[in-house]
Amino acid sequence: MWGGRFAEGPSSVMREINASIPFDKALWRQDIAASKAHAAMLGACGIVTAEDALAIERGLDTVAGEYAASGVPEDWDLEDIHMVTESRLAELIGPAAGRLHTGRSRNDQVATDFRLWVRDALDEVDGALAALQAALVTRAGEHADSIMPGFTHLQTAQPVTLGHHLLAYYEMLRRDRSRMADARRRLNESPLGSAALAGTGFPIDRDMTAQALGFDRPTANSLDAVSDRDFALDYLQAATQCALHLSRLAEEFILWASQPFGFVRLPDALSTGSSIMPQKKNPDAAELVRGHSGRITGCLVALTVTMKGLPLAYSKDMQDDKPPVFEAHGLLGLSLAAMTGMVADATFNTARMRQAAELGYATATDLADWLVRQADIPFRQAHHITGAAVKLAESRGVALNALSLADLQAIDGRITDAVFAALSVEASVAARASHGGTAPAEVRKRVAEARGALGLE
Amino acid sequence: MWGGRFAEGPSSVMREINASIPFDKALWRQDIAASKAHAAMLGACGIVTAEDALAIERGLDTVAGEYAASGVPEDWDLEDIHMVTESRLAELIGPAAGRLHTGRSRNDQVATDFRLWVRDALDEVDGALAALQAALVTRAGEHADSIMPGFTHLQTAQPVTLGHHLLAYYEMLRRDRSRMADARRRLNESPLGSAALAGTGFPIDRDMTAQALGFDRPTANSLDAVSDRDFALDYLQAATQCALHLSRLAEEFILWASQPFGFVRLPDALSTGSSIMPQKKNPDAAELVRGHSGRITGCLVALTVTMKGLPLAYSKDMQDDKPPVFEAHGLLGLSLAAMTGMVADATFNTARMRQAAELGYATATDLADWLVRQADIPFRQAHHITGAAVKLAESRGVALNALSLADLQAIDGRITDAVFAALSVEASVAARASHGGTAPAEVRKRVAEARGALGLE
Amino acid sequence: MWGGRFAEGPSSVMREINASIPFDKALWRQDIAASKAHAAMLGACGIVTAEDALAIERGLDTVAGEYAASGVPEDWDLEDIHMVTESRLAELIGPAAGRLHTGRSRNDQVATDFRLWVRDALDEVDGALAALQAALVTRAGEHADSIMPGFTHLQTAQPVTLGHHLLAYYEMLRRDRSRMADARRRLNESPLGSAALAGTGFPIDRDMTAQALGFDRPTANSLDAVSDRDFALDYLQAATQCALHLSRLAEEFILWASQPFGFVRLPDALSTGSSIMPQKKNPDAAELVRGHSGRITGCLVALTVTMKGLPLAYSKDMQDDKPPVFEAHGLLGLSLAAMTGMVADATFNTARMRQAAELGYATATDLADWLVRQADIPFRQAHHITGAAVKLAESRGVALNALSLADLQAIDGRITDAVFAALSVEASVAARASHGGTAPAEVRKRVAEARGALGLE
Amino acid sequence: MWGGRFAEGPSSVMREINASIPFDKALWRQDIAASKAHAAMLGACGIVTAEDALAIERGLDTVAGEYAASGVPEDWDLEDIHMVTESRLAELIGPAAGRLHTGRSRNDQVATDFRLWVRDALDEVDGALAALQAALVTRAGEHADSIMPGFTHLQTAQPVTLGHHLLAYYEMLRRDRSRMADARRRLNESPLGSAALAGTGFPIDRDMTAQALGFDRPTANSLDAVSDRDFALDYLQAATQCALHLSRLAEEFILWASQPFGFVRLPDALSTGSSIMPQKKNPDAAELVRGHSGRITGCLVALTVTMKGLPLAYSKDMQDDKPPVFEAHGLLGLSLAAMTGMVADATFNTARMRQAAELGYATATDLADWLVRQADIPFRQAHHITGAAVKLAESRGVALNALSLADLQAIDGRITDAVFAALSVEASVAARASHGGTAPAEVRKRVAEARGALGLE
Repeated sequence: MWGGRFAEGPSSVMREINASIPFDKALWRQDIAASKAHAAMLGACGIVTAEDALAIERGLDTVAGEYAASGVPEDWDLEDIHMVTESRLAELIGPAAGRLHTGRSRNDQVATDFRLWVRDALDEVDGALAALQAALVTRAGEHADSIMPGFTHLQTAQPVTLGHHLLAYYEMLRRDRSRMADARRRLNESPLGSAALAGTGFPIDRDMTAQALGFDRPTANSLDAVSDRDFALDYLQAATQCALHLSRLAEEFILWASQPFGFVRLPDALSTGSSIMPQKKNPDAAELVRGHSGRITGCLVALTVTMKGLPLAYSKDMQDDKPPVFEAHGLLGLSLAAMTGMVADATFNTARMRQAAELGYATATDLADWLVRQADIPFRQAHHITGAAVKLAESRGVALNALSLADLQAIDGRITDAVFAALSVEASVAARASHGGTAPAEVRKRVAEARGALGLE
Repeated sequence: MWGGRFAEGPSSVMREINASIPFDKALWRQDIAASKAHAAMLGACGIVTAEDALAIERGLDTVAGEYAASGVPEDWDLEDIHMVTESRLAELIGPAAGRLHTGRSRNDQVATDFRLWVRDALDEVDGALAALQAALVTRAGEHADSIMPGFTHLQTAQPVTLGHHLLAYYEMLRRDRSRMADARRRLNESPLGSAALAGTGFPIDRDMTAQALGFDRPTANSLDAVSDRDFALDYLQAATQCALHLSRLAEEFILWASQPFGFVRLPDALSTGSSIMPQKKNPDAAELVRGHSGRITGCLVALTVTMKGLPLAYSKDMQDDKPPVFEAHGLLGLSLAAMTGMVADATFNTARMRQAAELGYATATDLADWLVRQADIPFRQAHHITGAAVKLAESRGVALNALSLADLQAIDGRITDAVFAALSVEASVAARASHGGTAPAEVRKRVAEARGALGLE
Repeated sequence: MWGGRFAEGPSSVMREINASIPFDKALWRQDIAASKAHAAMLGACGIVTAEDALAIERGLDTVAGEYAASGVPEDWDLEDIHMVTESRLAELIGPAAGRLHTGRSRNDQVATDFRLWVRDALDEVDGALAALQAALVTRAGEHADSIMPGFTHLQTAQPVTLGHHLLAYYEMLRRDRSRMADARRRLNESPLGSAALAGTGFPIDRDMTAQALGFDRPTANSLDAVSDRDFALDYLQAATQCALHLSRLAEEFILWASQPFGFVRLPDALSTGSSIMPQKKNPDAAELVRGHSGRITGCLVALTVTMKGLPLAYSKDMQDDKPPVFEAHGLLGLSLAAMTGMVADATFNTARMRQAAELGYATATDLADWLVRQADIPFRQAHHITGAAVKLAESRGVALNALSLADLQAIDGRITDAVFAALSVEASVAARASHGGTAPAEVRKRVAEARGALGLE
Repeated sequence: MWGGRFAEGPSSVMREINASIPFDKALWRQDIAASKAHAAMLGACGIVTAEDALAIERGLDTVAGEYAASGVPEDWDLEDIHMVTESRLAELIGPAAGRLHTGRSRNDQVATDFRLWVRDALDEVDGALAALQAALVTRAGEHADSIMPGFTHLQTAQPVTLGHHLLAYYEMLRRDRSRMADARRRLNESPLGSAALAGTGFPIDRDMTAQALGFDRPTANSLDAVSDRDFALDYLQAATQCALHLSRLAEEFILWASQPFGFVRLPDALSTGSSIMPQKKNPDAAELVRGHSGRITGCLVALTVTMKGLPLAYSKDMQDDKPPVFEAHGLLGLSLAAMTGMVADATFNTARMRQAAELGYATATDLADWLVRQADIPFRQAHHITGAAVKLAESRGVALNALSLADLQAIDGRITDAVFAALSVEASVAARASHGGTAPAEVRKRVAEARGALGLE
């Protein structure tokens, strides 16, 4: 394929380090599509004859059929998906196959194929994110009133509703989808026709191939077009942020499923047992999702380091762009599917949650707020008074609302027995009705909005 | 500040590990602005009296004046910028200061301050990117006709124009700016009023504070609002991609300034000498820009790792969000300024560049293309014929167009002496007039478009 | 300092990006020591006169005194600690100062200084690790019999002793210390005298300076000596692994301090409160330690990326070696100190721990093991029988040893009432007396060994 | 395998995310070896009968034979290599197979297998490093006198010898081997018998299995033994540093093979051509080695992030330990093989190198040094005088030794015509005979030492 300048063929280590066909065969659909678009354009522009263009397109359809039926043959001597396909095309249609590579190079070809693949990947992830959002919103609707302890620093802070908690993840995924959409919009320019690095002297029509492949426009600079892997980094960066969100949700399911918490029973279908401890039911899927955030971060770092300091234009280092993207996409897809199953099918132990919300003086802030509102005490001072009340309750080993009015008045005379109404966990969550707050009414509003946004009746 | 529950004060290691004031004092402008907006809203909603609101706002102006004049005092016992400011406010206006913290928490306060800071940072970077783009476009316009070797694999590939090469970076920075704009749009929601994690029972108006601070809307979920650092990661991810682009440009300047290349003389103002080798003029600024891409990547990884697996809501780990963002922003700003100076003031040795473009059989593709066009030979076959011609020229140690017509016809009889017109570097670049190609006419079109987009003339 | 070849001075952005004095002033002690060793050697070898050598050494002592008293002046025009010091030396002793730089360069000078600094840092970390080990071993000795649930997958697995659990961290830190020792041994070669890159023509004695500075030998290749930052990476890699261990310990303290677990009360001195929730006592120090593992990882990545693909010899990118090492060292030191305080002063709630160990069928494996030992049933079959027993107990909501013998015999007839002795948590931990097992006797042996290794008593 | 507690089997996403057999089948040799050692010990300790032990060992040999002949069957329902093997063993020898898992768990089993695998990997890498060292030393010996420009900041600095340059890499690889040896020593403790997390009640002999598997001793703490992946991180860290060294060597080959440098002709066997530019001979292998340093760094980051913050003991996240190690090892092995071929078979263009060494005023330092030595001028002053001479030569466009004595004396009267002897590149390199310097005699000494250390001749 490289002409006759090479005295010796590649050594065996070279064949192994150089061949990308073991992984870039994943691009075959995109490679065929881009070649068909290129051939049709060459025909329309009179660069090849209409007969040749047609023969090429039909031949490529045949190759595609073979790949779909039997897979892509891994011929390391042919290096990559482009040469494997062109070589098979030549067997099928003869010398006309040699006209397909007119006005293009493998450099713009692989840039085009890979963009198309990443675009599909972004669309897949968007769909998977929407499915997980739908599961979250459905469960949030069921649990708009279920009270649980809200934590900061993993210390009981204030009571919240489970629905409110689940909707926090809905918001994270909303940002993830927006990031995927941004990445899609930014990548959607066609490198095809940039050739090796400098463009081509053939009178090609780059708008025609761009349109045929669903791109918004051709790229504006051929050197950039073959050197650019921003679109792959955009994917990996968005995937990493999404994986971080999933790692947080996974962490919570793992915590909640532990015996000390006992907030949730995970679906059997997403748990495993132990080879030695017969009683175990382990949250393996959640742990793997959490672990995968590490590997996805590793994929991002891999390509980031690879691209650092590369002079223009194409360098072979850039062949290392695909394995991290393929790996990250596989891991992210599995992670999203696993978390969707987990959210949809987990059994929440709302009684245990509510009970935990009673502990830890979760309504202390409500006492302070009551003092501000009812007794017009500056918040800082109210905070101090409440601290004294908590200290007293703690020393007696009782809850805040188990202190007597006399006890409370001994701390601050302005306290009346109206305060007790503010100290229940139900009163506490109901009160937090500010926009985005945890009050059940507020959660229901957010659920309704989210269902609308997701197109769920 | 934490009320009376604590028996002992923090140990000295705790003071040191816990205090964020040494770095979060950088947020003081944002902290004052957010507190003023909050106070005005508390007043407007009748949560504090108009007098108290006014006293707070005026007091905050006084504090701001003090900070602007003398800096922010680093009192580690007060932990952070929020408490340092509130404490000073209390000295200035008395107990009314204690009413400022009504209906908010440090959790939503720092989330608000930091978003405002990152928003400013994004705007600064966008301006710096535009300045570097302007420098690139100006030099590209000057060098639309200057011919240099285009490289792939750092091997001479085809002749390109220097203007075309510089515009490749214009495109990269265009994507960087689009990434900054996306990040800005996504962060522009106000967390203020989310309080500690659950919202607040005070009848606050979150739309009012959002609007006062230039946010598009309040955030939709209070748990998410205090737990979310996506906006910081968005900044770091965009900064990392930008730093990668700069590392590539820096690498090229370093290569070009080396004696074997000799393509450029760097500005004295951005070079340094040696303490031992008196002849040296080193491209230090470019090397530091390349090096900084490592540190900026490190900043991204730092926050990525920190956020992994954190359960909701706020955890103190998240205090480690600011140092990497502050560091990356400082390094990126310096890098952009240095590269702008480098691009604007470098002296290109166009004679040396043109001379290098003649070497390395850079127009071999033009011979192959000529064979396709003039003799209707399939490209693959033309590629083989050309390979034989290159081999012959190489064995004689001459350029391709120094072979005689007889030599060429001995390789393939279809070659005529019209071929020689295609083999000059000028003809080669002029031919590549496809959209985004390296032809001077095409480069001038792109320069004109870019100048329009940048608002230059 | 660069001689007279430069037409213009550095621009302001250049001064800022180029100056390393803001951070490399931290090297002043090492820089003075290395310069004194170099001057003494120059004198001993007759390269400078004995008088000049003495004047230089005394002058350097004066400079050192000034730095110790008043700090290092940050003169950006002098770029770095080397030039700041040499410049001050020239003010103090006149032209003889100009002889100090004979036979060396800033390239080998900074390599020497930084190695010395990292060597000190490794020693500091080793001491801090030993202190944390001592705290762990002391608490492990106190709690060799305290029973708690051992978790895998954060699910109750088998009872373990708290002493055993704490000793797991002793082992991790033992490996950390071994890593620090390896790094120290590997770095302990002197680059001094490698000069700019090629060695020097002056008849220097590199063994003499190596010995004076406590190095084992001079480095063997001058190009490598000025280009090598392995020692900094070795430090960062060892620091990262150590930070990971601390992040795991921190995670456990955070979990154990949560209300659902309630296994530990953290020292007040290492906790903080909330500005809004008066009841809160937050494990801030542990969270910051966990967070710092992210930043330390970022430091490692920063230098890794910076070093990638740098051609020999010294490049200015390598100036970015110090900030990540300095940052990581500061964070690691604080983290170790905080965890030492936490381990030493935490109050373990052993009653709560023991109670938790009773839950979750933690002794199910003991039933299976009993079946193997007493009834000669293959383990796999015993595992199945036990699974059925757990299922029955779970369906009744009781512990395993609350099932009647009849119940158990209905599952498998070979079970006798001797089984109940195996099902207590005390019996379970006592049984696991294999080497390294959790049995109290085994833990005491390990504690004794560890105390010996640490030189305690 | 998990007993009868699970109502539903794993869902299809669970099967896919949970199964490790697709990658952990790579551990089969280690798994068989560890199981055989365990069975022999169970027999020797009387925990199983001698007949059962023998049947198990023979059965495992049969399984090993099958794997060697036909590969490991990927049965996802059996999850991992341990269960696939035990299940096949049960088919072969019946119920006795169920006794193999006595006194162990998959947690200690996989820790043992993976340590054995990493130990083999370390040995493989050490051998490959020695081979590359041998190639470097051989070429260094050939080129002890070949003069080339030494660069700092990629600017011509001083002449060096090619042999000296190649030996710099010998030193880097020496440190890499020392790092591999440290990692090997640290990992060489046997986790086998730690069981699930707490040790076992069976009277096992951990020393016996440790010895049988070539470990130095059993691990000291069972909780640590099943939770520890330091050995995998040690491997990845050492691999990353090695990859960085290779990335630098690759960068240099790429630079040197470029037309402007022209220092080297790469072996055809490690180069490729272009699909469009018939003249190209690209340094693909070197670029891939440089690129692989990115992916190897990504592997290190992946496992680092995965391990962050995991509570004890085993968590399923840790299943993500193997893919990054396997990937990094494959990439590192290929990279070492490729660079060994490159170093061994590259053709250095020493004439071009020598010519380049003449340019760029590479001997300016020699002039300054001459002034110090012959005229007793302090180095700083000599540096200034030399700067003026370079400036004059540069303004005339000539080399330093092309200035006349009169020109030089006009700059400083103390210069005599003896100076010219110091200004040739041969004199320059010969002069740098300090320990580790570039002088040919010094290089030959280092080559001889290195050949001795490698056991060559």
